[in-house]
Amino acid sequence: MDAHTNAHTSASLPRVVIVGAGFGGLRAARALAHAPVAVTVIDRNNHHLFQPLLYQVATAELSPADISAPIRHVLRRQRNADVLLGEVTRVETTRRRVLVRDRAGAHDRTLTYDYLILATGAGQSYFGHDAWQPFAPGLKSIEDATAQRRKILLAFEAAEAEAREHPAWTRALLTFVVVGGGPTGVELAGAIAEVARHALTRDFRHINPASARILLVEAGPRLLPAFPPSLAEAATAKLRRLGVEVRVGCAVEDVTGESVTMGGERVAARTVIWAAGVRASAAGQWIGAETDRVGRVLVQPDCSVPGHPEIFVLGDTASVNGGDGKPLPGVAPVAMQQGRHVAHVLAARVRGDERELPFRYVDKGTLATVGRSYAIADIHGLRLRGLLGWLTWMVVHIFYLIGFRNRLLVMLQWAWAYLSYQRGARLITNLDVVPHAAATTASPPSTTSPTPVAERG
Amino acid sequence: MDAHTNAHTSASLPRVVIVGAGFGGLRAARALAHAPVAVTVIDRNNHHLFQPLLYQVATAELSPADISAPIRHVLRRQRNADVLLGEVTRVETTRRRVLVRDRAGAHDRTLTYDYLILATGAGQSYFGHDAWQPFAPGLKSIEDATAQRRKILLAFEAAEAEAREHPAWTRALLTFVVVGGGPTGVELAGAIAEVARHALTRDFRHINPASARILLVEAGPRLLPAFPPSLAEAATAKLRRLGVEVRVGCAVEDVTGESVTMGGERVAARTVIWAAGVRASAAGQWIGAETDRVGRVLVQPDCSVPGHPEIFVLGDTASVNGGDGKPLPGVAPVAMQQGRHVAHVLAARVRGDERELPFRYVDKGTLATVGRSYAIADIHGLRLRGLLGWLTWMVVHIFYLIGFRNRLLVMLQWAWAYLSYQRGARLITNLDVVPHAAATTASPPSTTSPTPVAERG
Repeated sequence: MDAHTNAHTSASLPRVVIVGAGFGGLRAARALAHAPVAVTVIDRNNHHLFQPLLYQVATAELSPADISAPIRHVLRRQRNADVLLGEVTRVETTRRRVLVRDRAGAHDRTLTYDYLILATGAGQSYFGHDAWQPFAPGLKSIEDATAQRRKILLAFEAAEAEAREHPAWTRALLTFVVVGGGPTGVELAGAIAEVARHALTRDFRHINPASARILLVEAGPRLLPAFPPSLAEAATAKLRRLGVEVRVGCAVEDVTGESVTMGGERVAARTVIWAAGVRASAAGQWIGAETDRVGRVLVQPDCSVPGHPEIFVLGDTASVNGGDGKPLPGVAPVAMQQGRHVAHVLAARVRGDERELPFRYVDKGTLATVGRSYAIADIHGLRLRGLLGWLTWMVVHIFYLIGFRNRLLVMLQWAWAYLSYQRGARLITNLDVVPHAAATTASPPSTTSPTPVAERG
Repeated sequence: MDAHTNAHTSASLPRVVIVGAGFGGLRAARALAHAPVAVTVIDRNNHHLFQPLLYQVATAELSPADISAPIRHVLRRQRNADVLLGEVTRVETTRRRVLVRDRAGAHDRTLTYDYLILATGAGQSYFGHDAWQPFAPGLKSIEDATAQRRKILLAFEAAEAEAREHPAWTRALLTFVVVGGGPTGVELAGAIAEVARHALTRDFRHINPASARILLVEAGPRLLPAFPPSLAEAATAKLRRLGVEVRVGCAVEDVTGESVTMGGERVAARTVIWAAGVRASAAGQWIGAETDRVGRVLVQPDCSVPGHPEIFVLGDTASVNGGDGKPLPGVAPVAMQQGRHVAHVLAARVRGDERELPFRYVDKGTLATVGRSYAIADIHGLRLRGLLGWLTWMVVHIFYLIGFRNRLLVMLQWAWAYLSYQRGARLITNLDVVPHAAATTASPPSTTSPTPVAERG
């Protein structure tokens, strides 16, 4: 019998393997709590991550643990669920098994399944320019977020150290470019502007953090294409009031460690963040399924894979027609509703009910924040902006955040940030991974002497 | 003029360079707020770290940012203070300057000083067995603490994965050895026991976390030698009730990645934490001063260095006679009082007052926690134990924790942990650095097949 079948359930129960404990996978697992199946959830990390707030970790407002919940702990009372920390490397659809590379210091293993749910999410896409990735990292994991936080905070530190000798370099250090005008890009640019204009005001002696230049670059004709134009315009105006330079219809042509070239102009910038495009995980390749141009599996209306009624794909890795000919967006509510739907379809199949149950998305609305106390919300045509939008955004995010303790902590930190203009998690960790200026190409012109720069006593 | 003299103070003010923003260095900087000097604080990190609570990060109770405060932010209103993120590599006492290796991605630099305060703390000592260090890391930095947390949590994950096939290996995974019976060792062992016995109870299916074996090993005749015997005995009894195996008079003879040999017995253990000995930082070598056997500088009664009245050494890096012939212990109150004292001596010198002002330590008491709600306290002969001791410990630690927000968050998390038995920061980060079982010597016997182990469908 499979080592990962739940010890407390009969080995004869159908085995459901769920890959990925994001919004979709975790919801599917929980919705199977009372089904006569043995569930195994496999994830690369030990925690479910509340991705919509990742930008707040990157900009030093929240701590990683505030937006994470141990998967085991979330499922601790669900006796038919088992959790495995590991990375799926292959799926053998004919033998119905997944190969899992261990991540805990144990052995790799193979799990057989009767049903397979693939909810493995998406990564960044650089539209064929993967060479830009090291200079313009994306924001998908806790490690991404703490690396961004380190990079943003170190830019101010290095600028403070170099302000007098190298003004041009200091300028590049204090130039932040966010690529991509969707919600993530807008939220990041707004949050970086708040950090520079408010949180750091008194802390430096040789630079004025408020002089930082923050650019938000979008290739399309406007920001936030998923929102009605009036709300997107309001958000754009708010970003400009925060001091963000918004450039729409402006394509990025090159990214190096020292500059970004966009719309023919080269801007010296040391910190570039990529929030422009996504690419689905490799799940489509694992099962040899047909995918769209960003790698999403073209699933049946019930989220199962054509030719494989025992395999379901959901969330950012699935392409489901939204009814208007366009695929549903890669957002948490779609993944969660699909997770619950797939669990219902699967439970029905186990009961012998093979009816086709197509997935229907219930759009409850769309939200995006701009800075500390401003958000836009589009809820069934009800359009909110400003503080009221932000309160709505806050309530919704607190509601969906897993864990009572996390909710309390996050609320307290938001209240603190709101009242004090301060960021509570301005911690630079893993400094030892930072390359030394003298050793990088990003140093100022070599006409200046190397280490030590000069004796200025 | 020096690039790091405060822009707002005259260049003619005496320059004070403080190396290290721990308890001593930061206190010295703050106590110089109204002195006519220009202060530069240099630290390897951007944050002051509240080291006494580091064990709670290692055992998943607090987040790193909860016990850290950005040094710049702490000193933001002190106009005569400047902060530099960097690592001192050399001190040239004749030219009165320090060489600083940059840590922010800028250039190395050289700072001249009129007065130098060295408050660089201590690291772990392995008593000549540095080869044990990779297998038995210490607990001195945020990175140490998150690495320990990862190691402890992954041990349970790996045990869960291997429980059925490799019971002996699982046993080694669930054996935790803490070396050193001082307050840090006692606090760590107690906290690991709480994690195993309470926080993880329901989360696993194939192992019982409460079956974990936790050993606390001390070479001396008893635990907590700094406490009166009656309190140390009470703490030892409490540790035993928590399920910790306490071994005193037991020297560690060898540590490998797979086992610890102590008192002639080899115990298979995958997680070993070193809390046994400290060694002062290299400050004594920088200035060519006479040091004791653990590297502490033998300073004058006023904390200045013999032959160098312009250099002061304090905290864990200094050896100051406590009056009883023994040097003062390496604890936060000593460092803080010395920081304030040195600031007063220095301010007097600047005013032309060259009188000798010997440092006198005012011992306000000693505290140590054992688990979730038990502590011992020795306050001028007033001896507390149990819940009352723990409440005292809590109040003292909250009082000295820097930052209003941090205090609130930490209190909230302690309240949560106390009421729920849960740990809020059970987050494993930087999993990609974990070596793969198949590639390490720590795998089970090679008679088992490599990856994948077996098909168990």
